[in-house]
Amino acid sequence: MYVDLNCDMGESFGAYRIGADDAVFPFITSANVACGFHGGDPAVMRTTLTRARAEGVAVGAHPGFQDLIGFGRRNMDVAPDDVYDLVVYQVGALLGFANAVKIEMQHVKAHGALYNMAAVKPELAAAIARAIRDVDRDLVLFGLPGSCLISEGEAAGLTTASEAFADRSYMPDGTLVSRKRSDALVHDADEAVSRSIRMVRDGKVRAVDGTDIDIRADTICIHGDGAHAAEFARQLRSGFASAGISVRAMGRANARQH
Amino acid sequence: MYVDLNCDMGESFGAYRIGADDAVFPFITSANVACGFHGGDPAVMRTTLTRARAEGVAVGAHPGFQDLIGFGRRNMDVAPDDVYDLVVYQVGALLGFANAVKIEMQHVKAHGALYNMAAVKPELAAAIARAIRDVDRDLVLFGLPGSCLISEGEAAGLTTASEAFADRSYMPDGTLVSRKRSDALVHDADEAVSRSIRMVRDGKVRAVDGTDIDIRADTICIHGDGAHAAEFARQLRSGFASAGISVRAMGRANARQH
Amino acid sequence: MYVDLNCDMGESFGAYRIGADDAVFPFITSANVACGFHGGDPAVMRTTLTRARAEGVAVGAHPGFQDLIGFGRRNMDVAPDDVYDLVVYQVGALLGFANAVKIEMQHVKAHGALYNMAAVKPELAAAIARAIRDVDRDLVLFGLPGSCLISEGEAAGLTTASEAFADRSYMPDGTLVSRKRSDALVHDADEAVSRSIRMVRDGKVRAVDGTDIDIRADTICIHGDGAHAAEFARQLRSGFASAGISVRAMGRANARQH
Amino acid sequence: MYVDLNCDMGESFGAYRIGADDAVFPFITSANVACGFHGGDPAVMRTTLTRARAEGVAVGAHPGFQDLIGFGRRNMDVAPDDVYDLVVYQVGALLGFANAVKIEMQHVKAHGALYNMAAVKPELAAAIARAIRDVDRDLVLFGLPGSCLISEGEAAGLTTASEAFADRSYMPDGTLVSRKRSDALVHDADEAVSRSIRMVRDGKVRAVDGTDIDIRADTICIHGDGAHAAEFARQLRSGFASAGISVRAMGRANARQH
Repeated sequence: MYVDLNCDMGESFGAYRIGADDAVFPFITSANVACGFHGGDPAVMRTTLTRARAEGVAVGAHPGFQDLIGFGRRNMDVAPDDVYDLVVYQVGALLGFANAVKIEMQHVKAHGALYNMAAVKPELAAAIARAIRDVDRDLVLFGLPGSCLISEGEAAGLTTASEAFADRSYMPDGTLVSRKRSDALVHDADEAVSRSIRMVRDGKVRAVDGTDIDIRADTICIHGDGAHAAEFARQLRSGFASAGISVRAMGRANARQH
Repeated sequence: MYVDLNCDMGESFGAYRIGADDAVFPFITSANVACGFHGGDPAVMRTTLTRARAEGVAVGAHPGFQDLIGFGRRNMDVAPDDVYDLVVYQVGALLGFANAVKIEMQHVKAHGALYNMAAVKPELAAAIARAIRDVDRDLVLFGLPGSCLISEGEAAGLTTASEAFADRSYMPDGTLVSRKRSDALVHDADEAVSRSIRMVRDGKVRAVDGTDIDIRADTICIHGDGAHAAEFARQLRSGFASAGISVRAMGRANARQH
Repeated sequence: MYVDLNCDMGESFGAYRIGADDAVFPFITSANVACGFHGGDPAVMRTTLTRARAEGVAVGAHPGFQDLIGFGRRNMDVAPDDVYDLVVYQVGALLGFANAVKIEMQHVKAHGALYNMAAVKPELAAAIARAIRDVDRDLVLFGLPGSCLISEGEAAGLTTASEAFADRSYMPDGTLVSRKRSDALVHDADEAVSRSIRMVRDGKVRAVDGTDIDIRADTICIHGDGAHAAEFARQLRSGFASAGISVRAMGRANARQH
Repeated sequence: MYVDLNCDMGESFGAYRIGADDAVFPFITSANVACGFHGGDPAVMRTTLTRARAEGVAVGAHPGFQDLIGFGRRNMDVAPDDVYDLVVYQVGALLGFANAVKIEMQHVKAHGALYNMAAVKPELAAAIARAIRDVDRDLVLFGLPGSCLISEGEAAGLTTASEAFADRSYMPDGTLVSRKRSDALVHDADEAVSRSIRMVRDGKVRAVDGTDIDIRADTICIHGDGAHAAEFARQLRSGFASAGISVRAMGRANARQH
């Protein structure tokens, strides 16, 4: 039994530092690397891939809306063609650095508002899936289990990875509890660890209404900011080890099929 | 005897149109495609590559400084690492669209102030050359004959193409007459055509002081803006035909070696 | 009987030209000047105000979303505080140039998606109104008749101006027909002129369903782009003259009250 | 005997935090507020002015190059008109917030590369001075003692303030030791305090070659980043108090003349 552990990385920009990348890198197996639109910049992309290669961490593109001041977190009324183009552009830009650093790109995970909008809008999810397929069909598409990203990714012939969140609460229908609600986050680290273990091992999680729901967790997402990011990552790794769950990267689609 | 004919294309941005791309495309063999920093945007990159493919025109990346408001024409005090990173990023972004559109990228030509600074600053030229080599070593590097771009490109193991300008005047040392001078441009189209033919056929051009100088012209650059861009391109093609000079793209480095 | 004639101006950016500002300026009485977020730049703001002063045209700020690539036309999920801040910033920036050029700013008209969203979202309209009042309470707020911009502007103590569109079709409820519909625009210039006269003189317009609706037209908006912008502006002025309607700027709030 | 104490503030942007603004505010008398080009954003400008008003700290605009990724620290080949326009724009934008927050703007201090270039290029310094005068002639212009900013500011009829740096080393000619040199900074806090006292009281400072040079210090600049920014500010205030030096803001030009 195994799972991937992913984290958003490389979101610093110019003189601005954000995230505990250095401390978190040793604990994760997949890094979602910002591509310069919502965060990140060319230098940060290079250094993040270089570090990932040294750590043996797999990398993926983390494309977002061109909204640096909003950190890509604000919904925008974009057309599917806009989404296709911004994903091709950002995945391509990271591909340049992957070539330069001599590391193969593994996956793509949309960021923030783009991720959330595409989860429920099939035409945007399809645009993301086509963009990824057209750049490199062996890239794995990350998405919320049961979301449009997963279904449209599969329809486009991509390998997909269903993603669960270690410290987020779930609605009875499997969507995330809105961050606007006070119960959006699981604050207790031990509880977040045991929930993560259960999601991976049993495919179940307790929703906010107390019912158990099915959830698929090919990869677990942890947050790279906050004071305790690295400490929680260490605890989670330790918990997985105790539960007999191996932690390893997804691998590219062609690697997985053989 | 043959020569490549290149032009800066795809510099429109969002709602803003610039350049006579549609009219010029039928006459050129290589398009230098803006990559979103000094001009261009993801949608324009896609449509430009799509058109190039339909026209049988080879494409290259045209990376510039991140200075949209200055159109990449203002010198900036950048470090070689900055230049390396911005070239990898922009070449990568175009590589994404080249994959999506199913066209192979042929070359890289730096834009505006980056081109001019790298022509005379070996450390910046070397950064550009390394960036190109690290993304795809079969890309051909365009540069001013005898400039640092050519020498550093060769030092990095790249195939280079020396570029002459159809309508620019030359100093006795082979550099371009500054645009700040009134005699920077050759305004008479017939004269520009005959000068271009002579540069390709004889490797000579008359400098502003009346002396003949040596010049290598693997590719001729024409300007894609101005009211008469397409008409001049047509005249130049006609002149080359009359002079027995074939016009064809450079080809990627590996294609040229066999 | 009189009316103001307004047009969006100064939306060029860097090397990019857009709009027929030079040709349209002689025909309008109020210029809505882009402030650098959706279009426009500092140099364009200065030259636009300088031209307006020479022409005797009143000026206003035309703030938009920080979405240059989308020309401010894409809805964004912004908070009221975001809107307040971006209006204060952009109105302030234009105030700097108004001081420098020695012209008094007359009004504020939100651009594109910001205008459309604020027309129907009272909390965004209120944020715009507060921002204007806090920078300069004598600025006149332009908005669609009956929209939240007018009601929230009045609630904030601002003088407002109801704006009709010379060449747009109206729904029976007084809102504009969506640009996605084929009947969004009145293409016939003569018809657009006679509709404009009727809106000013009678406060009526024929909606797309054939019914007459009430409309208030303190100011008429014409479009500054398109091949025939200046010609239409001339026709409209001529039509107003024949109908005995004077064309003049709104004036600042304090000027109007005395 | 008195002196002003200034610090760069409000350079955070969107999700990115930079500087120890909260901790430093109680100790300074003038805040140089970033205006959105090299750092800062509309929300940060508003909250910074609001805090300054609550603390009784005077505020000034801190305009920089439009180079967010380079934090405005990279020299750019700008024309004087470019500089004029970017200063009018940014000072105007802050004026908007000053009106909104009901605080009078006191001064303007150019940021980073713009400050350094204007110190030695009279045409750029003159452009800054004219821009300030044209927006509000009562704004005080901060600059290096003896630099073009001071001379061109005075030529434009502005009140100027000569600025000394608490923790920077000086060349024998009164310019700052380049940050590229290892002795650019005075690392010992006690020494920086006693140097500051001497600059204010005696108008002298020991240069790196050991000689004493004349220096005028109307205002002392401290750095707002670094772990010890607030602690050093406290020490400096304490040192000034012991030396009988009052710390107070410059005041606007018209306030100073009466």
